[in-house]
Amino acid sequence: MDVKDYMQRVGRAARAASRAIARADTLQKNQALLAMADAVERDSEQLIAANMLDLEAARQNGLEEAFIDRLTLSDKTIHGMAEGLRQIAALPDPVGEMDDFTYRPSGIQLGKMRVPLGVIGIIYEARPNVTADAAGLCLKSGNATILRGGSEAFHSNQAIARCVHEGLRLAGLPAEAVQVIETTDRAAVGELITMPEYVDVIVPRGGKGLIARISQDARVPVIKHLDGNCHVYVDDTANPDKAVAIVVNAKTQRYAPCNTMETLLVHEASAEFMLPKLAAPLWEKGVELRGCERTRIILGDQVVPAAEDDWYAEYSAPILAVKVVKDLDEAIQHINDYGSHHTDAIVSEDYSRTRRFLREVDSASVMVNASTRFADGFEYGLGAEIGISTDKIHARGPVGLHGLTSQKWVVLGDGQVRS
Amino acid sequence: MDVKDYMQRVGRAARAASRAIARADTLQKNQALLAMADAVERDSEQLIAANMLDLEAARQNGLEEAFIDRLTLSDKTIHGMAEGLRQIAALPDPVGEMDDFTYRPSGIQLGKMRVPLGVIGIIYEARPNVTADAAGLCLKSGNATILRGGSEAFHSNQAIARCVHEGLRLAGLPAEAVQVIETTDRAAVGELITMPEYVDVIVPRGGKGLIARISQDARVPVIKHLDGNCHVYVDDTANPDKAVAIVVNAKTQRYAPCNTMETLLVHEASAEFMLPKLAAPLWEKGVELRGCERTRIILGDQVVPAAEDDWYAEYSAPILAVKVVKDLDEAIQHINDYGSHHTDAIVSEDYSRTRRFLREVDSASVMVNASTRFADGFEYGLGAEIGISTDKIHARGPVGLHGLTSQKWVVLGDGQVRS
Repeated sequence: MDVKDYMQRVGRAARAASRAIARADTLQKNQALLAMADAVERDSEQLIAANMLDLEAARQNGLEEAFIDRLTLSDKTIHGMAEGLRQIAALPDPVGEMDDFTYRPSGIQLGKMRVPLGVIGIIYEARPNVTADAAGLCLKSGNATILRGGSEAFHSNQAIARCVHEGLRLAGLPAEAVQVIETTDRAAVGELITMPEYVDVIVPRGGKGLIARISQDARVPVIKHLDGNCHVYVDDTANPDKAVAIVVNAKTQRYAPCNTMETLLVHEASAEFMLPKLAAPLWEKGVELRGCERTRIILGDQVVPAAEDDWYAEYSAPILAVKVVKDLDEAIQHINDYGSHHTDAIVSEDYSRTRRFLREVDSASVMVNASTRFADGFEYGLGAEIGISTDKIHARGPVGLHGLTSQKWVVLGDGQVRS
Repeated sequence: MDVKDYMQRVGRAARAASRAIARADTLQKNQALLAMADAVERDSEQLIAANMLDLEAARQNGLEEAFIDRLTLSDKTIHGMAEGLRQIAALPDPVGEMDDFTYRPSGIQLGKMRVPLGVIGIIYEARPNVTADAAGLCLKSGNATILRGGSEAFHSNQAIARCVHEGLRLAGLPAEAVQVIETTDRAAVGELITMPEYVDVIVPRGGKGLIARISQDARVPVIKHLDGNCHVYVDDTANPDKAVAIVVNAKTQRYAPCNTMETLLVHEASAEFMLPKLAAPLWEKGVELRGCERTRIILGDQVVPAAEDDWYAEYSAPILAVKVVKDLDEAIQHINDYGSHHTDAIVSEDYSRTRRFLREVDSASVMVNASTRFADGFEYGLGAEIGISTDKIHARGPVGLHGLTSQKWVVLGDGQVRS
């Protein structure tokens, strides 16, 4: 197979299908989503059989347990995929939403209409459930999509694709609206990200290295997620109970997610009081603390000395960097300098300081007295999310259906001309 | 001067200044804008003297009259610049706008806050007035900016920069919030578009070739404007008077703008009646018609035969491509296939057809019974515009203050943690 030629055909077909899908009405799209969900559940045995092929190969290749875990399809994960598709069907359709209509002095009536982006290319790791999620989100938002999952999940993804296509067919929508790349050749990715004539935006998911490489080489806009180096700043006006609850939750509720806290900042005026209160439950859960000098003076030698690199680290592990700061200004400066502009929280009862934190911290999500772990599509009510953007243009933070659309201008007139 | 080194310093300074400007309150920003306007008017003699240097060089280099025209500063254009700055001061401040606050089932209150993008790089042709406009728009939207105007306007731009810096200084804002590149070395552009650590977005203005090249090489998101190939479709249900008024205005009110009509589509059921009515006033104004076969049968040999290229053409001249289409479907298909997704209008009294046109034409501005010439920042009430985007993500169509911002998520809690 000539990969370039194949990808050109895929791109052309996606562009053509994107028009049909943009026009499709809400009922038709929901029918397709519900039919996909039914097909996935009905065919669970075939899906698990296809997944077995991938799992065997992965074990033979000695891939690690966490990888195998993400690759595995079970009755439970298949049911989860189906439920995900049904939840997307239940979400309001963003396409065609009209807003902000006003009359201009010229007599024209001006407003905005929400419209699909067109064709979305998604590059993701070997997690078969993403195939169903991504197909569903793109379909509901009126976009055609080209999916390129990790090659280790090839058989699983092709089996899911058959269910997706059945759903599209039953709803009278073109199968090319969702195309799952039928080759494991890595060159397909290179083609996908350099076809601006057929692809409007790329969403890469996976490791930081992969995303950075795709962003570097893409000739198409990329909605990307790089690091999640999130902070909680405990002000000296913090309610201690809230501070402990939020810090423990933000660090230990789960270690892997990108919205988990990686650095704790504590105001020096209350550090001697707060740090022991915060450290005890963290240590109890086996979290290693890496602290600045002041932290070590207060908490003792059990705290590993923090190096400059620790302030940049996304540990994704039971490790936490801890720094005593002299005031709100130093906290904001530290977050803006070392953070990844993902999600940062202040714990404080001071009105003016919380206002300043919200305004001045340059992150996709800024929070007062809440755990950073809330920063995701489900908690924000977006339904599912296609990713969490750390970019500044288009969409920041969790990207759901709205993030897969944009707005065009609508002008309604009665024969107006410009003078 | 080492250009790479110089641009790195410019970038670092811009990043630092972007924080101060993001924090600046509305009053301070408006003071700066009004002081800039006053300085520009007060120093009009120095501006004209600096401009003379540029004009002499341009004439010696034999640059064409239209180029010299855009380069020239007069009392009138200087007054226009000052008025533009005052208008920007009068616009509402988009920074900090908060929207869509709702309580989530977890008890957190979730909403959005409008925030600056950070540092905006603007690359533009030799039009000194853009220096003041762009500085003003970026400042009001809370962004730091790096301006790189056409080298033929070097002295004019430096003189305007002095007025801009005076305004910033008087308002207590850092001069580095607006930096006008102090070298004409073309390598500066290459550096500017490849510093993602210091520049958040690039807005190129100018010829299509330049913009395509910048988009190709940029390592930073680009808000770009490529072609303006705009259409008016006259349906067989059109009110003939409205059709004539809109077609004549969309083509002849001005030939150069990107929102000028370049192709006219006419429904075949009314073509024999409408085409002569539409052609007469266009011919009277000296517009050359290039038509499909059917158009030539109806209007005669005065119509030049249109070639395939004519359907893609942005003439920016008194030339119009004309095609008879068999129905709304063909009109929409033609616009989506050959158009540039900029601005397209239907003239029709049919409810369902206008609704379909608005939904299915994939352009930044879609219009019913109004001239395409309305598609700009002033007519849309954005104040000024930094450009007109033909991209799909982030901002489509005229880009004003809102287009230079994005939204971050705000979470307000009372100690909520995730379960």
